[in-house]
Amino acid sequence: MDIQEFVEQSIGQWRSQRSAHHLAFSHFEAVESVINIEAISSEANSVIDLCKTYNIEPQAVVSPFKMSWEGHSDWDDGEEVLKGTSVLVPVPDPTRLNCGKLLREQGYAETMPAAGDYHLLEDGTFVLLTNYDRASAEEKIWFVNPNVRCRVSLIKTSAGSGVVTASFSSEIRQSQSK
Amino acid sequence: MDIQEFVEQSIGQWRSQRSAHHLAFSHFEAVESVINIEAISSEANSVIDLCKTYNIEPQAVVSPFKMSWEGHSDWDDGEEVLKGTSVLVPVPDPTRLNCGKLLREQGYAETMPAAGDYHLLEDGTFVLLTNYDRASAEEKIWFVNPNVRCRVSLIKTSAGSGVVTASFSSEIRQSQSK
Repeated sequence: MDIQEFVEQSIGQWRSQRSAHHLAFSHFEAVESVINIEAISSEANSVIDLCKTYNIEPQAVVSPFKMSWEGHSDWDDGEEVLKGTSVLVPVPDPTRLNCGKLLREQGYAETMPAAGDYHLLEDGTFVLLTNYDRASAEEKIWFVNPNVRCRVSLIKTSAGSGVVTASFSSEIRQSQSK
Repeated sequence: MDIQEFVEQSIGQWRSQRSAHHLAFSHFEAVESVINIEAISSEANSVIDLCKTYNIEPQAVVSPFKMSWEGHSDWDDGEEVLKGTSVLVPVPDPTRLNCGKLLREQGYAETMPAAGDYHLLEDGTFVLLTNYDRASAEEKIWFVNPNVRCRVSLIKTSAGSGVVTASFSSEIRQSQSK
């Protein structure tokens, strides 16, 4: 599996169940959402802008995509509505097989743009490491079959030793395209 | 990481938060438990007995261990108590690096003994595939650091296509030994 195949497999609408474990105080949070992932053009303004921000040549981009999500959490019994959209731009490293950068308009842990380092494991698992100012995130995404995706996200202290939140999403495909 | 190192790292007492996603009806189950993992002798009766059941030479065994757990689930608001113990016996395949069988006194999905096939990925993730009569299980366990383990378990229909339950445990070390 290379990044292009991984993105292709991800395109579509997904129903997601996410559980977040807030480890310090053993809290369980449950989130249900619908996620849309759609391919976008390498020439889209949002892609060109992200490339400029990170001094990346737009020709180096492979399979940019847009992700949007809408859901609700049981956190604090508030049934908080979660909604967002982000453009994600893979930039493979020409010198290392199945490794590269993933540029994002907006990260999960912060609201600023973020660039992470990705690699793909031998079994097709996509691994993404992102450093933020005050935290780092480690994410693993893999397909169980073409219609079921799992995603584990760990939010760590910026020193990288302590895990603050561990969350798990199971994502079931609803349709092939948005 | 080989199976011996993996078991060594696992020895100790762990506090576990587990979320199970019952996918067909989008149910979230939350389980809190304490898990003890302790090394046992290759010559223990329980190990010898399991070897006999599966026609394995006891000399082929590496790092057998005993796992016990006690916890409670919020399933059905019943605060069901979960408690159990199982002997687990790794039997490396001499012809394939970091692959082998894992014999178990008792599986998760069934109450019968079960033998699964394990392998270790390049990043140290332990992967276990087990076929039961009416289901199959796919489990991934990895260390985020020496004191944090993640575990994803998928229960599939025996045909292997549909995922029935996806569950995620985050496990925090409480002590080095039981």
